[in-house]
Amino acid sequence: MSAAGKLIGVGVGPGDPELVTLKAARALREADVVAFFAKRGEPGHARSIAAPHLRNGVTELPLIYPITSEIPKCSAAYRDTLCAFYDHAAGKVARELEAGRNVVVLCEGDPLFYGSYMHVHARLAPRFSAEIVAGVTGMSGCWSAAATPMAQGDDVFTVLPATLPEAELIRRLSDADAAVVMKIGRHLPKVRRALQGSGRLERALYVERGTMADAKLLPLAAKADDDAPYFAIVLVPGWERRP
Amino acid sequence: MSAAGKLIGVGVGPGDPELVTLKAARALREADVVAFFAKRGEPGHARSIAAPHLRNGVTELPLIYPITSEIPKCSAAYRDTLCAFYDHAAGKVARELEAGRNVVVLCEGDPLFYGSYMHVHARLAPRFSAEIVAGVTGMSGCWSAAATPMAQGDDVFTVLPATLPEAELIRRLSDADAAVVMKIGRHLPKVRRALQGSGRLERALYVERGTMADAKLLPLAAKADDDAPYFAIVLVPGWERRP
Repeated sequence: MSAAGKLIGVGVGPGDPELVTLKAARALREADVVAFFAKRGEPGHARSIAAPHLRNGVTELPLIYPITSEIPKCSAAYRDTLCAFYDHAAGKVARELEAGRNVVVLCEGDPLFYGSYMHVHARLAPRFSAEIVAGVTGMSGCWSAAATPMAQGDDVFTVLPATLPEAELIRRLSDADAAVVMKIGRHLPKVRRALQGSGRLERALYVERGTMADAKLLPLAAKADDDAPYFAIVLVPGWERRP
Repeated sequence: MSAAGKLIGVGVGPGDPELVTLKAARALREADVVAFFAKRGEPGHARSIAAPHLRNGVTELPLIYPITSEIPKCSAAYRDTLCAFYDHAAGKVARELEAGRNVVVLCEGDPLFYGSYMHVHARLAPRFSAEIVAGVTGMSGCWSAAATPMAQGDDVFTVLPATLPEAELIRRLSDADAAVVMKIGRHLPKVRRALQGSGRLERALYVERGTMADAKLLPLAAKADDDAPYFAIVLVPGWERRP
């Protein structure tokens, strides 16, 4: 029996295909199979970033998210549906590994920082040899595009989901020197109030599609509407005690 | 008069020269001048990481930190000495830019996340065209080397300096789903107590030279001594509510 293949979680960075690391580009060139998450009918964001680096004729393994728009996100049914999907996705990857093929699983940003790859990793790392290729995170891409120093020296830096209740956002923003609020979407009015309530609105930057050609970066206080996609983020730069 | 050169802050990632991005490698190939911070008599960590990517004969501009070991770190004298040094370093870079040369300033990890480059950027970005090339952070390099999922879903993630008082470390560790404690050094006994006090010791990982060939990774609870270099970090993985 031949040896099992290796699982490789590869971070492809925040969006610009040139922000892929040399190690990620090599892993993509050498992979037997390239797996990626995508919504039905869409190419997949990580797959699009990796496209210039894929070997001609490499086997692709799309892992297509189930439709969950009718299920409330906090329900057990939603969690069960996603859990079954990740089991199924991990099973597809496992079959390739068992056949002795090395599988790269693409991940936007960094594989182990808020990425879908982690669901595959947690299920397969106990059974297969697994390697991680670190990537540039989405938030690094955003503050670099904004050319805004984020944290320095003894700053406390925090990443907050916009889903938190307003009072908790205020408390946590007030307690951090620098912060990133993620997954803004429909939470923008609440996030704006929390930034105001914590005295952070003046230095907050709103970023959409941070490292794409059509990036949108502006002071949140200057943003006239409350329209924001799910993946928009707000940066609250630190380093207030500059020498 | 010719146009001024461009300032480019380039993240070279956490240590492995292959974790440099394609964009960083190109910036290094195209640079007229490559500047980097280093201690006297040492090659500079960022310079070592970038070495395989430097163009033969490129002009190098070392920015040598002053000796500060005799000055207390919290004193005004220490801040003044560093501030004067960053003024001097920015002046050296400015003279190259004024002469029309593009200057890459190397930075370990990501340029705008706890990096020395920010001191140059803050001084020169108002006067010169500046661009940032995002990099893989040191902490991403560490949790990737450990293959440990760090944060997922609605996790709150926090970066804490080990210099914080013990009670504040306990409070902040207790308040976060996932955390990284940086600049461990002589603070390890205190950090250990704070992890114990916040119920996080069991899942804490100690990491030294995360992406180097001689990396040291182990559960902090299994580390027998309290010896730690300044740049050691402790990872407290989140994602406790796995589906």
